[in-house]
Amino acid sequence: MPVNLAPAESDSILPVAGVRLAIVSAGVKQPGRRDVVLVELAEGTETAAVFTRNAFCAAPVILARQHLKTTPPRYLLINSGNANAGTGEAGMQAALTCCKHTAMHTGLEETTVLPFSTGVIGQALPVEKITAVLPEAINNLSADNWYDAAHAIMTTDTLAKVASKTVELDGRTVTITGMSKGAGMIRPDMATLLAYIATDAAIEAETLKDLLQQLNAVSFNRISVDGDTSTNDACVLMATGQAGNTPINDLDAPNVQPFVQALRELMEYLAQAVVRDGEGATKFITLDVSQGRDEGECKMVAYTIAHSPLVKTALFASDPNWGRILAAVGRSGLDNLDLSRVNIYLGDVCIVNGGQPDPDYTEDQGQRVMQAAEITIRVELGRGDAQETVWSCDFSYDYVKINAEYRT
Amino acid sequence: MPVNLAPAESDSILPVAGVRLAIVSAGVKQPGRRDVVLVELAEGTETAAVFTRNAFCAAPVILARQHLKTTPPRYLLINSGNANAGTGEAGMQAALTCCKHTAMHTGLEETTVLPFSTGVIGQALPVEKITAVLPEAINNLSADNWYDAAHAIMTTDTLAKVASKTVELDGRTVTITGMSKGAGMIRPDMATLLAYIATDAAIEAETLKDLLQQLNAVSFNRISVDGDTSTNDACVLMATGQAGNTPINDLDAPNVQPFVQALRELMEYLAQAVVRDGEGATKFITLDVSQGRDEGECKMVAYTIAHSPLVKTALFASDPNWGRILAAVGRSGLDNLDLSRVNIYLGDVCIVNGGQPDPDYTEDQGQRVMQAAEITIRVELGRGDAQETVWSCDFSYDYVKINAEYRT
Repeated sequence: MPVNLAPAESDSILPVAGVRLAIVSAGVKQPGRRDVVLVELAEGTETAAVFTRNAFCAAPVILARQHLKTTPPRYLLINSGNANAGTGEAGMQAALTCCKHTAMHTGLEETTVLPFSTGVIGQALPVEKITAVLPEAINNLSADNWYDAAHAIMTTDTLAKVASKTVELDGRTVTITGMSKGAGMIRPDMATLLAYIATDAAIEAETLKDLLQQLNAVSFNRISVDGDTSTNDACVLMATGQAGNTPINDLDAPNVQPFVQALRELMEYLAQAVVRDGEGATKFITLDVSQGRDEGECKMVAYTIAHSPLVKTALFASDPNWGRILAAVGRSGLDNLDLSRVNIYLGDVCIVNGGQPDPDYTEDQGQRVMQAAEITIRVELGRGDAQETVWSCDFSYDYVKINAEYRT
Repeated sequence: MPVNLAPAESDSILPVAGVRLAIVSAGVKQPGRRDVVLVELAEGTETAAVFTRNAFCAAPVILARQHLKTTPPRYLLINSGNANAGTGEAGMQAALTCCKHTAMHTGLEETTVLPFSTGVIGQALPVEKITAVLPEAINNLSADNWYDAAHAIMTTDTLAKVASKTVELDGRTVTITGMSKGAGMIRPDMATLLAYIATDAAIEAETLKDLLQQLNAVSFNRISVDGDTSTNDACVLMATGQAGNTPINDLDAPNVQPFVQALRELMEYLAQAVVRDGEGATKFITLDVSQGRDEGECKMVAYTIAHSPLVKTALFASDPNWGRILAAVGRSGLDNLDLSRVNIYLGDVCIVNGGQPDPDYTEDQGQRVMQAAEITIRVELGRGDAQETVWSCDFSYDYVKINAEYRT
């Protein structure tokens, strides 16, 4: 059961002018499941993407990076059920074949196609199953398919993650629609799981890259389910330009602010949705670390707490066993931490005050905070002005069940 | 059920001349449980100790460090059921009071007493319960109490960890007996859980410190159950000198080698026992990372695999889902890793050969390795001569159960 995450209403999802999608069933892993999504981008669309930093990144990640450098993309080909990772040279050929077939059917260069895969690592991609359904996909492209596409890219997700927003820009209504997937192997590092966000706003190429970097850093790059960075993470931002605004080339311009804010909210929503639907999650946790010397150390403390199996199991049990939080802060590797300046809060309740147990703390107060489905853990380091927020979830029997049984 | 770890036979545990122990019931957490151990060291005993590097280290750790610098210890006072950690100034006073009472009853200085606590973090130590049983403890000191003491220091351990060895040194028989405890919050960092090893060998003070550092580094500092470094880790090595050998002052001397080897084996046994009895463990995992540039990067890769929840749950399921191992290696943070030189083995089965899936690998081979209770994961980095071994365990339903219910 996702934590405070309702299924999207299909009629709340808006098409983005210049983007069409098709969903087909190739039987990549299970016969009959809709597991291939083809996204078509109108000519003139600017696309930016960030990818996993895992050294063993998947074949489609390597190829998508290459293609993105060569030509503006016109098609994204996404499959679930198989990650095409850990597949070596054969995997590279498999990804390339998928791109070539797409190019062949559309009369474009193969470099205009970006491949994406998600699912089990280390198994050969069934290329023929995918290439066989490409003609059907091309025939079924439609601007109204975001909702179904969000379902087709799911793996251990229990819920599709998809949302839309509109915002005024230069007197025109601009639409932003995005989808994400992922529930395990989630601790993105400069990139993330799979996320696709499109807008009909016009944005210049370099500005689009900056925008993605900035907003990815505070959305998908601030979540963790289990600390495992995937081999396949990718986040793609597409701007078709069909809304007719003056192309954005300054993210700080006052008229652009509402658009940036709307995009940020959408990306935060899609990122948090991954955590809310984290494998086995029963709690949504916000880690807020402030007064650090720099962002790096704030993130280090936040992720140490977020990844602690003991903290995560205590959160699952709604047990205000705050000693585990304190132990995690203590082992997070800060140089010369002055404990007498450290404060720790569970929700609005102070548990550690100047490095000492807060004398006013009562177990009842802690229990009240821990009982909730959404819990904020706040750490003040007392040695600077930097601040970071990370979102995570608890660790339940179901996490073990899902991951012990994933392949069987 | 511990993994391949039989309960010690009480008559295999040998007394160490110069060391007496007493076990009493103070009711620290549960009435009636034997939860306090007093260890008496004969005059002339040299003692070395290493402690946790957690910044939030417990009051007894702070005090034991101070006392150890001041005077050679004559008593160790150990309680289970309460860690006296996260207890601030009151905790320091509580630990000091325990030492003062021990000193009062024995006519010695309080600095000759080292305090140790293990159990729940963040609750006040019931000092009076402990001081009340000190006279009984002092009356019951006996050289034959190691076996019972190993039981009294247990917390979530299911089995006492205690062993003895004898070895010839300078024509005399030297005895080594040690005990350890710990099953969760286990990822020692330059120190460990609680471990006490005594020998009647004579060892000079500085040499004893070196010996502990060296052997701790390859035993207790190479294990991980859950990646959580405790606030209370401590490992103590005591040498009473009563065997009458020429005091050891050169660890490389040929006549000393059998002793060092025997001590290393005992410490490895006690360290591995903690992992074999790790919370919920069903598999004992050896991570062997070689051909690294330095020990640091070998350890980094080994611990990244050891701490990956996805690898740990796959091990629990006996699922040869080796893509998760590959993903963990890939995200472990090595600079400029050349994948084409990386080999990965599951037991004796090559799964990745020069960065590519080994063409001869079959799922049956992987399944055979994963089915066993003891599994070795071997990674060759192909960029140097450094090598490190780390021991860990899998991640089961019972880990979640134990840690979600620990305080209730």
